[in-house]
Amino acid sequence: MPHPQSIANLKRLLAPASVAVVGASSSPDKAGYQALHALQRFRGDVYPVNPKGGEILGYEAFASLAAIGRPVDLVIFAVPAAACIAAVQEAIMAGCGGGLIVSGGFAESGEHGAELQDELGRLCGESGFRLLGPNTAGFVNMASLLSATFVAGRERIEAGQVAVVTQSSGINFLVTFMLQRLGMGVSCAVGVGNAIDTDVSDVLEFLAEDEDTRAIALHIEAIPNGRRLYEALCSVTPRKPVAALVIGREDVGDFARSHTGNLVGSYELKVNALRQAGAVTVDTAEELAAAAATLAAYRLPPKRDPGIGVLTGQGGAGLIMLDELKGAGVSVPTLGTTAAERIAALLPPMTYLKNPVDTARPGPTFPDVLRALVGDPGVDAAIVFALHEPATLRPEEFMQEVRRESGKPVLFGSGGPESEIRPTLAALRADGLYACESPERLARAAIVLAKDAQAQWQLALPTTEARHGATQAAHKGLDEHETKTFLDALGIATPPRSACNSRAEAVEAFRALRKPVVAKILSAEIGHKTEAGGVHLGLADEASFERALDALDAIPLRGDRRYLVEEMANDGVELIVGALRDASFGSTIMVGLGGTIAEAIKDTTTRLAPVSEAQALAMLDELRAGALLDGWRGSPAVSRGAIAESIARLSHVLDEQPGIREIEINPLRAYADNVLALDALVA
Amino acid sequence: MPHPQSIANLKRLLAPASVAVVGASSSPDKAGYQALHALQRFRGDVYPVNPKGGEILGYEAFASLAAIGRPVDLVIFAVPAAACIAAVQEAIMAGCGGGLIVSGGFAESGEHGAELQDELGRLCGESGFRLLGPNTAGFVNMASLLSATFVAGRERIEAGQVAVVTQSSGINFLVTFMLQRLGMGVSCAVGVGNAIDTDVSDVLEFLAEDEDTRAIALHIEAIPNGRRLYEALCSVTPRKPVAALVIGREDVGDFARSHTGNLVGSYELKVNALRQAGAVTVDTAEELAAAAATLAAYRLPPKRDPGIGVLTGQGGAGLIMLDELKGAGVSVPTLGTTAAERIAALLPPMTYLKNPVDTARPGPTFPDVLRALVGDPGVDAAIVFALHEPATLRPEEFMQEVRRESGKPVLFGSGGPESEIRPTLAALRADGLYACESPERLARAAIVLAKDAQAQWQLALPTTEARHGATQAAHKGLDEHETKTFLDALGIATPPRSACNSRAEAVEAFRALRKPVVAKILSAEIGHKTEAGGVHLGLADEASFERALDALDAIPLRGDRRYLVEEMANDGVELIVGALRDASFGSTIMVGLGGTIAEAIKDTTTRLAPVSEAQALAMLDELRAGALLDGWRGSPAVSRGAIAESIARLSHVLDEQPGIREIEINPLRAYADNVLALDALVA
Repeated sequence: MPHPQSIANLKRLLAPASVAVVGASSSPDKAGYQALHALQRFRGDVYPVNPKGGEILGYEAFASLAAIGRPVDLVIFAVPAAACIAAVQEAIMAGCGGGLIVSGGFAESGEHGAELQDELGRLCGESGFRLLGPNTAGFVNMASLLSATFVAGRERIEAGQVAVVTQSSGINFLVTFMLQRLGMGVSCAVGVGNAIDTDVSDVLEFLAEDEDTRAIALHIEAIPNGRRLYEALCSVTPRKPVAALVIGREDVGDFARSHTGNLVGSYELKVNALRQAGAVTVDTAEELAAAAATLAAYRLPPKRDPGIGVLTGQGGAGLIMLDELKGAGVSVPTLGTTAAERIAALLPPMTYLKNPVDTARPGPTFPDVLRALVGDPGVDAAIVFALHEPATLRPEEFMQEVRRESGKPVLFGSGGPESEIRPTLAALRADGLYACESPERLARAAIVLAKDAQAQWQLALPTTEARHGATQAAHKGLDEHETKTFLDALGIATPPRSACNSRAEAVEAFRALRKPVVAKILSAEIGHKTEAGGVHLGLADEASFERALDALDAIPLRGDRRYLVEEMANDGVELIVGALRDASFGSTIMVGLGGTIAEAIKDTTTRLAPVSEAQALAMLDELRAGALLDGWRGSPAVSRGAIAESIARLSHVLDEQPGIREIEINPLRAYADNVLALDALVA
Repeated sequence: MPHPQSIANLKRLLAPASVAVVGASSSPDKAGYQALHALQRFRGDVYPVNPKGGEILGYEAFASLAAIGRPVDLVIFAVPAAACIAAVQEAIMAGCGGGLIVSGGFAESGEHGAELQDELGRLCGESGFRLLGPNTAGFVNMASLLSATFVAGRERIEAGQVAVVTQSSGINFLVTFMLQRLGMGVSCAVGVGNAIDTDVSDVLEFLAEDEDTRAIALHIEAIPNGRRLYEALCSVTPRKPVAALVIGREDVGDFARSHTGNLVGSYELKVNALRQAGAVTVDTAEELAAAAATLAAYRLPPKRDPGIGVLTGQGGAGLIMLDELKGAGVSVPTLGTTAAERIAALLPPMTYLKNPVDTARPGPTFPDVLRALVGDPGVDAAIVFALHEPATLRPEEFMQEVRRESGKPVLFGSGGPESEIRPTLAALRADGLYACESPERLARAAIVLAKDAQAQWQLALPTTEARHGATQAAHKGLDEHETKTFLDALGIATPPRSACNSRAEAVEAFRALRKPVVAKILSAEIGHKTEAGGVHLGLADEASFERALDALDAIPLRGDRRYLVEEMANDGVELIVGALRDASFGSTIMVGLGGTIAEAIKDTTTRLAPVSEAQALAMLDELRAGALLDGWRGSPAVSRGAIAESIARLSHVLDEQPGIREIEINPLRAYADNVLALDALVA
């Protein structure tokens, strides 16, 4: 339960009206000088705190926070790690809202630092005082021109509509200055560092309410509390688009831990969870800046499959854009008759009039071609590329107009001498348009718009559906029959079978079941039945069955010997479906294709649980070998719906059964109309 | 057989001492005016040609090419498509070297244009006259400040060390100006357009000899003569590094054809062939410019696995770089004791002293840390990232020195306010260093250096090995036994078997072979034996064998009924190996893992044939599910060497057997010590 002042104090921290610097100094080489110096543009009140008093950098200095005589919103602690506990206690006593600890020497530095950090966390939790850091280069809030940071170049940061939230504060300022190159300033830029108290989720919730922020650039390394981040994003992204860069595609754990003191966790899970929560994920810092700048300029309404119109003055650039868009799975729809005819009338023959529309060297009809393209009902946004040729094409004279007329995003890209292009790009950006300097960047901006619209469409799908009525508790140590009976109760079908206590029962079961059958040993003592010789397939006649029972009886067991006799399932497509409790994200649900190759290439996808059938269907679309589900080389297509239903049913299990850490159906065999769980394991 | 003047005339075309403009005009809106106007910086002789004579733009105009009185090197044809034939004939008569046709209206525009184009091609072939275009925006050669182009901004193109060669001339100038943003000018920039006579291969060969060119940026859409390009690159890349952007990752064929008039062909084949020839392939136009700029600044010696040292002032940036490097499979080696101890002595505790080396906020020891890092014998090149902080770090004061001392590439990346960073980057670039503005770009530059060194290492591997002595000709219509016998002759093992003309022979074969056996129908009438019920596996006793023969006898056949009795192969890992003749690249060799999932995700790789065993081993490294070869879940590792030997052997087949279009071994089953070809198809 958070402290009642917690949210109000976070706002005082990040959007303060008054700032004190504890440890303020008049020696320019001291952190306490630099922190104060950085506040010179700040539009609020500034209070240096130094036991000696006097005047520092033109401000009257106070002997203590209490001596200021009013509760300051933000305290910057320019004191060493060891002195922070006392200083924070003083700030809490003085009724301050929050603090910033810039110095390192906490959890990232070893055991003693971790203790200091824990103590600071405890102080915050008890009092509702909010702390940013430690181990961060600080933050800026441009609404009040606050720069609570020592970073070089801070005075050149410009105000704008993108907020940057990062775990690593180096990336915070890197991305901030990248945004500036794209003509986009920042509203806030916050590096959370060790995130003792204020983490990225807190900052996201603050930004959701921040009037100056239109889009958010998020950078994630480790996520100790992934479920909390997921929930924060689910509430933020419908209001404000979020682009996210997640570190750790490769195994960088050792280096990352030294950097943040946290485990990195599964990259796939992080990325999938962020997407599930409506964020658009990107791969590099530059793409993060570009995506956030794009989303600050435009946002498409939620849509399952938005269409992009592509207009190009150079065929080669058109090919690059088409390659990018198709590679990202974004639709470049064929134009309707109206648009196609209009464009054909505007352009000379020999040009490519579909989508992309290639005008060849742009002429005077170019703006009208764009109007016709954007007017097509299948086109939700349009990208326009042309080499810089001001004599024939001046995008600043028509792009904004087309955007206004159509109400659809139009984005522009160009190439040419930098000094000549700059004014054109600047003019477009001043109009609130996205403009960039390569066909691939332009295509990627469109991809970001499409992915945001798709993510919001998915987020709006109903998440939970009526739960099943399984009341029986599952636990580790269930034998195969009990596990399958548990699945039956979940509504996930398993093959007809009989658990038998004696050979006589087994033979009776054999006679009753459809042939051929499978005979298996049923004992908690046997972990890997197949390896132990405990599985006999394809038993069609009683003689073979008896021989199989003989073989099962030869397996040495300490306890009771039981048999599972089961109808052998027909051939189908095999999948693996698993529910797993993740330390950071809580319950998750995974699906992949079965078989060693799928396993070797890790062809699986994961979501935070629970998921609906619609979400489960979307998971199947992400499998690289998913074409196997749709009938491969003449085999019949299997039911994606039946698979999705099983995924959705299994996805509720961990929340309902706190005793289970993991349950995996392997294989789930899929058929044209149904699925069968052939084996499962509970942990 | 090319015309004897062909190469000399290509040099006259691309590096002319004199230029004539046919169709020169004094009307500024005419192409003949613009072409002449573009030549104002040209250091050679300029001759306008216009039947009216007089003076144009200050030059004396001549009534015809002949009237100039000397054979001009390059003729720019500023006349419509229909007038080009006569104009080119005149140029040939006048002894000119080559010509540029800027206008479109040729093959890309339909049948009549294609005829014109063919006629021009014929004129060139007969005379040795060289033609660039048509359908190109032209080219520049900065050695003589020649700009044979109308493109806007051409007067701002700066001289430098990268040559640009593109199919699409829009991309030519796009990349040229991108290079300029990276502080790198061009030696030449050539767009070949429809490439009627001069194609990218010709230009590459010209550039290999061009003194001003240190690295080449190549852009490829369609490759009508892939084998020729491959051979040109094989001879060029050891002398000059080539970065290549290949269009068509996705299906863009329809649009591409409209653009170039050519089929796009397989993207994978193009990329693999270019890499095989020693080029470094990239994914975007910006990456192409960056890669070429990097390779113009540095080149590593050929090496199988070069190591990159990473030094960062910000941990977050270090993680981004590590992610990129690992994702590209480039080594970031652990430092040796000497370097590690030296660095530990230079940095405070708590910093990360492995590789990457994270100094935290850079201090005065930073240059010496770099020296220690670069001094490590495992480090072939080092990348250095730090946010711009001139008060504590001035890379322009030590980077060049470290490069000189160590003889190793050192590259720098930074972030911060653009106006502040620019002078630093410019100073580094003026010193011939690569410098960029993001950690990911920096890492990608290192990846380019590593990939170039790897590609050259691979290129230097012996290509062909002693051929086998198979003299028998293979052809379509061989039955399974004949095809396997053909494979045996190639030295690719197949299971012991017997082709039997009667049941009696089959039973005899059964008795002689190791059990279990496989019985198959042997008839050219049956395409898919399994579907026809013509394959019976696991026959261990004579009764089962007889039953199988009964079943084979029940298959209706018009012709002779024969049987193949074969020892059944043990379980192993299945692969597909195929040799296929490609229309553009000639004979190719492919390998992939077997099974539907591998097929569904297209987990294959291809090379131009023939390949050596060493090259074949490198192919296996590219398979995504290649881990299955190394022992999966307890199964034994299979022999990569034996697989590679089979690939190498099969790769010679198409060159030796002109009658075969395709031969595919499916499956090739691999074991710990050997392989067995279990089935094969000849087409």
